[in-house]
Amino acid sequence: MRIIEKVKEMQVWSDAARRAGRRIAFVPTMGTLHDGHLALVRAAKKLGERVVVSIFVNPAQFAPDEDFAAYPRDFARDRALLENENVDALFYPSAAEVYPDGCQTHIDVERLAPLLEGEFRPGHFRGVATVVAKLFNMVRPHTAVFGEKDYQQLQVIRRMTKDLNFDIEIVGHPTVRDADGLALSSRNAYLSARERQAAPSLFRALKRAEALVAQGERCAGRVAAAARAEIEGEPLAEIEYLRICDPETLAEIPRIEHAALLALAVRVGPARLIDNAMLKT
Amino acid sequence: MRIIEKVKEMQVWSDAARRAGRRIAFVPTMGTLHDGHLALVRAAKKLGERVVVSIFVNPAQFAPDEDFAAYPRDFARDRALLENENVDALFYPSAAEVYPDGCQTHIDVERLAPLLEGEFRPGHFRGVATVVAKLFNMVRPHTAVFGEKDYQQLQVIRRMTKDLNFDIEIVGHPTVRDADGLALSSRNAYLSARERQAAPSLFRALKRAEALVAQGERCAGRVAAAARAEIEGEPLAEIEYLRICDPETLAEIPRIEHAALLALAVRVGPARLIDNAMLKT
Repeated sequence: MRIIEKVKEMQVWSDAARRAGRRIAFVPTMGTLHDGHLALVRAAKKLGERVVVSIFVNPAQFAPDEDFAAYPRDFARDRALLENENVDALFYPSAAEVYPDGCQTHIDVERLAPLLEGEFRPGHFRGVATVVAKLFNMVRPHTAVFGEKDYQQLQVIRRMTKDLNFDIEIVGHPTVRDADGLALSSRNAYLSARERQAAPSLFRALKRAEALVAQGERCAGRVAAAARAEIEGEPLAEIEYLRICDPETLAEIPRIEHAALLALAVRVGPARLIDNAMLKT
Repeated sequence: MRIIEKVKEMQVWSDAARRAGRRIAFVPTMGTLHDGHLALVRAAKKLGERVVVSIFVNPAQFAPDEDFAAYPRDFARDRALLENENVDALFYPSAAEVYPDGCQTHIDVERLAPLLEGEFRPGHFRGVATVVAKLFNMVRPHTAVFGEKDYQQLQVIRRMTKDLNFDIEIVGHPTVRDADGLALSSRNAYLSARERQAAPSLFRALKRAEALVAQGERCAGRVAAAARAEIEGEPLAEIEYLRICDPETLAEIPRIEHAALLALAVRVGPARLIDNAMLKT
């Protein structure tokens, strides 16, 4: 596995692979890899002859009061995991390499970004869209794989990719979960044993909503209330938002006519956890 | 010369040229080509084995009260001129092809864009930066050539290209002028015969400033006042701005220590003309 720290070297590597007719599949990550990431890497191996994984904890997508400094990092472990998956290149740039002095350009996805996560994390998706566009120009992949756990992020990136005409296929990968349903996330490391027991209430809320819709309930308010009650039954969990939205525009909808997205963010102790489910009628 | 109207076809064409090891040089234009554009095309021919010219009057860089509808268009003439220059591909997409329904992503260059032109044309450089990034992803050039007449645009594009890590070399080309010094511009077509006679006052102002600096004047205020007087002597010309700036940051400077940019925008009848000169000590 080639370890690449410089943008220019990454571009040269990618250009050579492209000229040789190789299809490049890309998995951008913030490291501290778990089985969810490794599932993305395995999906990428099926999508391209060359797989590039990036590890970059992007300061631009954290607000000053958020957990940038505390965000878990373990490069040696990540590297060994990726070696084991036979990844072709690990792109591991420094913050100074990604954001040299004078950087002043950013990308906004106007209508999708301010909703849901954007309401509670203003500026977050500006940081995400900008760094992903930068990484796309550094890695020049044919396809890129993102987890559906961050559903809004996936939609923002799909939109940005299409709107800026990046010739890159964006692939969403189903959320990987622990046995009790908790979505894998690097932030789960923040949970105490007791908090870890409270965390699957998010998944139970999603399941409760799915069951109601399967039983014929179409009123988004009633479905949301039932899901909310699952989480509110757990004293350590505090809901930040729980919304039923159009899967494309992410606008809240009053009725579930076809598919609808149930998206939620919940604080459990020091961890802010997000999850979602597609409710299908 | 291949005429390409669809984004996908442009990307396929470009990908084939790249795989064949051809260097692609790109000249984005809004059409109604004049000798200034043709000079860019000839420069591009020296920079790449394949030359792509785009013609697209970008609605996103015009404010509602500006001249988007009136902007001169003459595709048949432009096409013949480019055939004559042996251009390889003319990219001529429709507005619906460039901005399909749902488009909502834009690019801002934070500190450069609000200055000078940005002060009088808010949103202009957002439109420029966004469409140029889109065109870069459509055409995938190795190098792109822009005229120095639009100096701030060139700086905004250089910054955007660098900040978003486009692997594209940006080349500035000296302004092409008529015999009396008027910078070539498609907007010169708006001038009546009398207004055309008033327009070279812009060039005289630049020359006056250059002469003063050559004589040792270092006070930006005195140089600007002398340049301003040249234009104010012309009753049909009305100055919108005339500034002496740092060539990199475009911030106004009080003294001309090394190089400084004199940038100006002047209304002459229905035409808004811009021009600039690099003042060198």
